[in-house]
Amino acid sequence: MPAGAKVRSDAAVALPRDAFAMGARRREKTLPGHARAHNRTLVLQTLLDEGPCSRADIARATMLTRVTVSELVAELLGEGLVVELGTRDAARPGKPATLLDLAHEGFDVVALDLSEPQRFRGAVVRLDGTVVERLERAIGDATGDAALAHAIELGRALVARSARTVLGVGVGTPGIVDAEGVVHQAPNLGWHELPLRDRLADELALPVHVANDANIALLAELTSSGAETLLVVRIGLGVGAGIAVAGVPVRGDRSAAGEIGHVTIGTDGGPRCGCGREGCLEAWLAAPRLRAAIEQAGPGERERVLEEAGRRLGIAVAPIVGAIDVRRIVMSGPEELLAGTLLEATAATLRERTLDEGDGLLVDMTSHGDDVVVRGAALLVRAGELGVS
Amino acid sequence: MPAGAKVRSDAAVALPRDAFAMGARRREKTLPGHARAHNRTLVLQTLLDEGPCSRADIARATMLTRVTVSELVAELLGEGLVVELGTRDAARPGKPATLLDLAHEGFDVVALDLSEPQRFRGAVVRLDGTVVERLERAIGDATGDAALAHAIELGRALVARSARTVLGVGVGTPGIVDAEGVVHQAPNLGWHELPLRDRLADELALPVHVANDANIALLAELTSSGAETLLVVRIGLGVGAGIAVAGVPVRGDRSAAGEIGHVTIGTDGGPRCGCGREGCLEAWLAAPRLRAAIEQAGPGERERVLEEAGRRLGIAVAPIVGAIDVRRIVMSGPEELLAGTLLEATAATLRERTLDEGDGLLVDMTSHGDDVVVRGAALLVRAGELGVS
Repeated sequence: MPAGAKVRSDAAVALPRDAFAMGARRREKTLPGHARAHNRTLVLQTLLDEGPCSRADIARATMLTRVTVSELVAELLGEGLVVELGTRDAARPGKPATLLDLAHEGFDVVALDLSEPQRFRGAVVRLDGTVVERLERAIGDATGDAALAHAIELGRALVARSARTVLGVGVGTPGIVDAEGVVHQAPNLGWHELPLRDRLADELALPVHVANDANIALLAELTSSGAETLLVVRIGLGVGAGIAVAGVPVRGDRSAAGEIGHVTIGTDGGPRCGCGREGCLEAWLAAPRLRAAIEQAGPGERERVLEEAGRRLGIAVAPIVGAIDVRRIVMSGPEELLAGTLLEATAATLRERTLDEGDGLLVDMTSHGDDVVVRGAALLVRAGELGVS
Repeated sequence: MPAGAKVRSDAAVALPRDAFAMGARRREKTLPGHARAHNRTLVLQTLLDEGPCSRADIARATMLTRVTVSELVAELLGEGLVVELGTRDAARPGKPATLLDLAHEGFDVVALDLSEPQRFRGAVVRLDGTVVERLERAIGDATGDAALAHAIELGRALVARSARTVLGVGVGTPGIVDAEGVVHQAPNLGWHELPLRDRLADELALPVHVANDANIALLAELTSSGAETLLVVRIGLGVGAGIAVAGVPVRGDRSAAGEIGHVTIGTDGGPRCGCGREGCLEAWLAAPRLRAAIEQAGPGERERVLEEAGRRLGIAVAPIVGAIDVRRIVMSGPEELLAGTLLEATAATLRERTLDEGDGLLVDMTSHGDDVVVRGAALLVRAGELGVS
C-alpha cells in the first residue's frame, strides 16, 4: 500500500525507536522559550563535559548554529556563568579561537547532609564537585524547630565561608520529600509537612533544593557511574533506597519511592521494629540495630550477624531486581558494617533468589564514602539552577 | 548578589521544576526535524483525544500557530491519516470551520497474542481500540520454527480479513524481548534469539512491533487508567509483570524488567519450580501450577490454596511497592483463579507488609479481560507508527 508506506517513511524520521516506551510518553509541546532554555543547557553541559572549548567546538558538539551559540555564550558571559580563557594555541591555521569555560572559579554550592544521627554535616562544593570546605554541627537529640534552626545556622555558616557567589543550597534530608521541597515525614527529626525548601530559602536568601538523602546519594552515583538503571541502598538511622530507571530517578506516586525500610522481610518473623511490626528491613539493618545485634550476640558472632543482615537485604532486594532489571546496586552507610561480609551475603542471596545468568550483577560500596550526600546535593543545585546533569 | 539573582530569574523560565529528576536527565538536542515530527504527533494526539475538531481548535489545544497546524494537516490529509468531515454548525458567527478527524475508517491494526497455552489469538483492531474481528489458531505443543509459522499464518489471515489499510502488526509474546523485537528467550515456545519483528515484517510486508505480553498489557492499562506509576501482574503459563514509572514503561538493563517469575518468595521453602529451585513465584502462581495445587488439595480446600497463592504474590510485590511507590496494581489472567480470594489476599498481604497509611493502594483485575494483549498490541502499533499514545 503506497499510502501506508508513505506514512511510515515520513513518520519514522524523528520518532524515538522505542515504540514501547513511547506508547505511554506524555505529550509536551516544544515551545520557543523551552527550546532556548534547552539549548542554553546544552552549551553549559558541553563545557561541563568537555572542559574548555571554543564557540565553534560547542557548535559542533551541540549541532546548534554558530550564531545561536554566540548569542547564548554572550548571555552566559553576561551572567558570569561562563568565562573567556584566552586564545588557543596560535600554531593552528586561521584566526585563533577564544576558549570558553564554565566559571568554576566564580561559583560555589552549599550542601547540607541532615541524615546522620546527632549531627548535621555540610560543605562548600565547587561546580565540578570538589569539596573545598566542611563544617559539622552537633545537634544532640534536637527535633522540630530546634533541628530546623540547626540546619539554618549550618547553612548560614557555610555561605559565610564561601568567598564566591553561592549558586544555591542543596539539602539531603531523611524522610519523604516532595518535588516542592516539603518534608512530609521525617520521624527522627520530628518533621511533618515542613516546607524545608522555602524556610531555608527565606532564611538564607538563596535558591534551595531539597531531596531525600538516599535519592541524593542516587544522583551522585548516577553521575559518577553513568548507569541507566541503578539502585542505591542507604543504611544509617533507617534504611532507604534511591532508584533510577532509564537514567532518571524514580519519585513515585507519593514522592515515597525507595521507602523500603518498613517492608517485611521473609516469612519467619524477625526482630520487632519501631513501627510495631516484626521483620521490617529496618529492624534487621538500621545501623543502630545492627550494632546492638552484634553486641548482644557476643564475641565471635559478629560475622554471623552481618551475614544474616546481608541475607535479609538480599531477600528484600531480589523482587526489585526482577521488577526493574537493575544490574548495579550501590550501598552507602557505615563501611565497618557494610563492606565485606554483609555486602557479600547480599550479593550471594540476590544470585540465589533471582534468575541470574552470571551476566554481572554488581553490588558495591559507594566510591564517594561519607561525602555522597554533600556531593549529590551539589549536583542537585547544579541541575536545578543551570539545568546540567 | 545581583549576578546570582540574575542567573536564577533567567534560568527559571523554562526549566522543569523537578531538579531531582533533571539532575540525571540525558541531554537531547531540539532539532528542527524533531520539532516537526513532535508537532505532527501533537496534532494527531489532539484529534485522538478530543475527537473531531477544526484547525483553529487544534491550534488552541496545541499552542501551535495556525499556519503550522494548516501545513501539518495538509500533510496528514495527503497521507490519508486525517480526513475532513464537513463544516461545523453554521449557526455560529463567521465562516463555518471544517471539522477534521483521524481516519479511523481508513486504517486497521492487526494484533497478535502469543502468550496463551496451545493457541495463538489475534484480532483486527481499529485505531480507537475497537476489536472488529477475532481469530484463534490452535498450535498444540508447537515450538521453534513451527510456532513461528503459526504466528505468520495467523497474521496473514488477519491482514486478509481487514478491508482497510493495515497500519501495522502488534505482537505480544512471552519471554524477554528487546527494543528491536528480538525474543531473547521464550522457553515455552522454544525461541532463543529469534528476530521475531523482522521475520514477521518480512513475511507480512508490514511494519511490526513486538513486546513482551505483560508489557503490552501494561500499555493497555496505562492508556485506560491514566496512572503514572503502575504495576501489571500477568499470570498464565508463567508469571510476569509490566511496570510503568512516570507514565513510561520500564525496560531494564537487559530488556528483562518485570521478570519476577523466578524470584524466590519467603524464607520457608515452597513448591519445586521448573527452573530447579524451590519457592519461585511461578511455582506458586502460574495458572497450571495453581490448578494442579487446587486439584491435589482436594474438595473444600480451593479457597485455602487461592488465599496462600495470593499471599505469596503479596510477599513478592511488597518490596516493589516500597521501591517504586506504586499505588495501583492490576492483575491479568484467568478470572476464575485470580478474581476474589486470591486478589483479596494479595491486597491484604501488601497492606500488612508495607508502610500503608490507608491512602488507597488499589489492587484490581484488568477491565480489558482476555483482550488486554490485543488491545495493547494495537496501541503499540499506533505509538510506533503515528507517535500517539
